[in-house]
Amino acid sequence: MSDQNKKDGCFFGVGVGPGDPELITLKAARLIERAQLICYLVNADGDSQSRTIAQAHLNPQQIDMPIYMPMSADPAIGSAVYDDAAQAIKQQLGAGKDVVFLCEGDPLFFGSFAYLLTRIEDEFPCEVIPGIASPHGASAKLKKPLTMLKESYGVISGRHSDEEIRQALLNLDSIVIMKAGRARPKILKLLSETNRLHEANYLEYIGRENERIIEDVSTLPHEVGPYFSLFIVLRDERART
Amino acid sequence: MSDQNKKDGCFFGVGVGPGDPELITLKAARLIERAQLICYLVNADGDSQSRTIAQAHLNPQQIDMPIYMPMSADPAIGSAVYDDAAQAIKQQLGAGKDVVFLCEGDPLFFGSFAYLLTRIEDEFPCEVIPGIASPHGASAKLKKPLTMLKESYGVISGRHSDEEIRQALLNLDSIVIMKAGRARPKILKLLSETNRLHEANYLEYIGRENERIIEDVSTLPHEVGPYFSLFIVLRDERART
Repeated sequence: MSDQNKKDGCFFGVGVGPGDPELITLKAARLIERAQLICYLVNADGDSQSRTIAQAHLNPQQIDMPIYMPMSADPAIGSAVYDDAAQAIKQQLGAGKDVVFLCEGDPLFFGSFAYLLTRIEDEFPCEVIPGIASPHGASAKLKKPLTMLKESYGVISGRHSDEEIRQALLNLDSIVIMKAGRARPKILKLLSETNRLHEANYLEYIGRENERIIEDVSTLPHEVGPYFSLFIVLRDERART
Repeated sequence: MSDQNKKDGCFFGVGVGPGDPELITLKAARLIERAQLICYLVNADGDSQSRTIAQAHLNPQQIDMPIYMPMSADPAIGSAVYDDAAQAIKQQLGAGKDVVFLCEGDPLFFGSFAYLLTRIEDEFPCEVIPGIASPHGASAKLKKPLTMLKESYGVISGRHSDEEIRQALLNLDSIVIMKAGRARPKILKLLSETNRLHEANYLEYIGRENERIIEDVSTLPHEVGPYFSLFIVLRDERART
């Protein structure tokens, strides 16, 4: 039952950046510290990368609202999880509570937040606080420009088809391949086929304790890697004034 | 003359985000506050967008080192400015001073910092602190996903050729066109030709007082706009689970 005198809460999608807790923005830190309710996705072990990154800004007065997202290839399962989560979040918003949803990287870049936003935005106020997306975290670590003035730049994910990844590698100067974990063997094969293996860099867990950076990916085993991994492919020869 | 007992300074490229001073990261704020020397580009009026964004974190003890970058189509002029600037920065680094170079958005994304980095990195330690790039600032403002799971995403600039922009508009689901100021008339024409005018959004001075957001770009005059402007083109129909 909703209290007629109560103002609706606001649903905030807050980006916490690629991993280093110091790469949270001032705005995200402020919103997380003041939030009444903190919401985030957890895996089967109850772990949340985004909550870990935001840890220093949480406070014990906050209501904690983990959403369990099973790893599944079936979109109907994900959809049902988002339906239930949106319902639970709307109940809190209707009761006048602001809800901060923590997102790794940037909320609107290959993230789950979009699926909640579409389910909530017609009924409640929503705000989005951008975060450092992992391609930017990765290029800063490598100290290599993601893109220079006249270059073409694109981002694709390991979930795209072989042909889409091949075309991107053939046509773009700079290309980031996100969510490279399960797709790693096929990505290494496509990098060889398009003659860009020597131009590729591989990073996992950017800014975390278990960070790994490999600039010679020919040494990388053709095995499945972790979810938080990506490839950055950059031209060897770059126009520099 | 370099002091043999003195440790070299470090050259930091620090992203200050797209415009809202609260979108600076905790790390950038800390480095700016502690820097001995702050360096940034200025236009003919002595104005610097990045310094304005970082204002709250500057302190009067810091040495201020503006670099005047003339607006010119001649790459030789830009190159000479970077040569001189790199020389001046290296002198400070050799004297043991850390230098923080302020960058709008992200330092390694369509930015000037890359041209300084290549001139300095072989001789002195360098670090890069990523910032929120303007496509992410823009999509957060619009509250529209920059890219969803199966979509293709790319970024191009108004400096690219008509044909390159046309191909990007034809082939990519989500496309951001940066540095759209002088190229605005040609971009509007290409959006019409590729039948994507209705899918385009236009933003200028994101997060600043003079911010403008136009979601119906057919109302936009076919005139040259400001340097800090961009188009985001997103599919009308998007796959949503």
